[in-house]
Amino acid sequence: MTRQQLIEQIRRKKSFLCVGLDPDLKKMPAHILRMPDPIFEFNKQIIDATAPYAVAYKPNIAFYEALGQRGWNSLQRTVNYIPKDCFTIADAKRGDIGNTSALYAKAFFDKDSSGMSFDSITVAPYMGRDSVMPFLEFENKWVILLALTSNEGSGDFQMLVTNPLLSPKDNEDDISNSQVILDTNNRYLFEEVLSRSQTWPHADRLMYVVGATKAQMLQRIRQIIPDGFLLIPGVGAQGGSLEEVVRYGLNKDCGLLVNAARSIIYASSGVDFAQKAQEEAQRMQQEMAHYLQVAGMVA
Amino acid sequence: MTRQQLIEQIRRKKSFLCVGLDPDLKKMPAHILRMPDPIFEFNKQIIDATAPYAVAYKPNIAFYEALGQRGWNSLQRTVNYIPKDCFTIADAKRGDIGNTSALYAKAFFDKDSSGMSFDSITVAPYMGRDSVMPFLEFENKWVILLALTSNEGSGDFQMLVTNPLLSPKDNEDDISNSQVILDTNNRYLFEEVLSRSQTWPHADRLMYVVGATKAQMLQRIRQIIPDGFLLIPGVGAQGGSLEEVVRYGLNKDCGLLVNAARSIIYASSGVDFAQKAQEEAQRMQQEMAHYLQVAGMVA
Repeated sequence: MTRQQLIEQIRRKKSFLCVGLDPDLKKMPAHILRMPDPIFEFNKQIIDATAPYAVAYKPNIAFYEALGQRGWNSLQRTVNYIPKDCFTIADAKRGDIGNTSALYAKAFFDKDSSGMSFDSITVAPYMGRDSVMPFLEFENKWVILLALTSNEGSGDFQMLVTNPLLSPKDNEDDISNSQVILDTNNRYLFEEVLSRSQTWPHADRLMYVVGATKAQMLQRIRQIIPDGFLLIPGVGAQGGSLEEVVRYGLNKDCGLLVNAARSIIYASSGVDFAQKAQEEAQRMQQEMAHYLQVAGMVA
Repeated sequence: MTRQQLIEQIRRKKSFLCVGLDPDLKKMPAHILRMPDPIFEFNKQIIDATAPYAVAYKPNIAFYEALGQRGWNSLQRTVNYIPKDCFTIADAKRGDIGNTSALYAKAFFDKDSSGMSFDSITVAPYMGRDSVMPFLEFENKWVILLALTSNEGSGDFQMLVTNPLLSPKDNEDDISNSQVILDTNNRYLFEEVLSRSQTWPHADRLMYVVGATKAQMLQRIRQIIPDGFLLIPGVGAQGGSLEEVVRYGLNKDCGLLVNAARSIIYASSGVDFAQKAQEEAQRMQQEMAHYLQVAGMVA
């Protein structure tokens, strides 16, 4: 899906809602569990119920992988069922040396190889440029690079203060004793991830993960990424505020995909789960429509 | 597998060789490709041929995942075929928020859930402590955390200079203007990953990935991790030197698992591939036996 097609969907549905497809057998209604492929059946009903209100779907790959082969079967059926006008995200957090990342790209982008073709995949940046490039080389596909995540541990490394002027080659052996005054070059690691990745080839195919629990950091992030799209998890069950995300993160093309999983797909654990999921998706869509109207993006 | 069991295997086989199981249909002999499950058949013959010389096997998960469900079937059969006295590594580079990492841990550690039970998994550190803890909570299992990888892009972020005294909370809003003299607190990001992770619960279940292409950095790494095990990829096809790895990385319990994949498993593309793989594994084992003898670890 192209950027323009995504923006059109956002305007058409007046929504930037992404529904997280995190199917957990422990939370599913009993009548679904009796079916031959309960995960696919659950997802199918959630998709049918929420598609008018959602512009994207994000299967969290771990939920499928934990079940081995049958999980991959359910995942493949799910991806192929999602309507073509919805943006699909493989939330896989992959990343490895080049020849290996090329294979992960085949797993999620190349239907001939794996049976699946997502529009995008989440990728971890730790291994650097050549670990991301194999994903970026697919035309009309997107890499959603981890920047600042929604979990508590995001502070451990993502918010370390770095000084790129010192790195990486100049002082390999004596950095522990060098006297350098940090000043305007000070940046958090996640900011370094944002700015370096913007210099890579096909950077126009990059989006970034920014947790809703770090909404105020969106101001700093928009200084580096004014125009790009951000995938925002953490609204709902994790405690992030949609209003704050919009205040600090909305740009002229919307530029946001806000993910909600548990608050939608487990809105009810009864036979009415799809109906309740629809109501919650619609509630979020209406709040989003309001913000888009205020910003003058939709009528 | 416990640390003591691993050390016993190293002494018994006089080897710290890990064979990378990276099965590539394009590189396999024609007679293997005609079999119903060529990937498993290839791996089986490689394992049979190399098991006397290898203490560990490391399937690179991407090679299986790229093939979708049938790849996962081949992976499951492979893991279950590896002899129980060999240490198994799921080279998966996973890592996500806590509840998701817990599912990845089930995928690779919990046979009841996924059909597979590895001894260890490689994990990316970017998301911090709570993304790693679900893997560390499994008794007698290991997390092999990415520290300094073997690829060119490892310099992009892993070798950024950080100053932990500034991070993460003290100066959230004004780090860009703060005047701080970096001195003995200067560390590379990968060193911060090493030292922080050593403070986490169950840190005795941590190993680290350090690329053989960065062998001289092993001196710095051994200052932080004197006793732990390091998984060293990059010897062979990627150009790293076994001699240098040993010089800078060997500790009193060996403390090294050196991975070779392509140089062993594709030593020949003919009907003699297993024989040639055996010869190359034995050649590496003999070199390793020499180093272990010089160090007085084996007779």
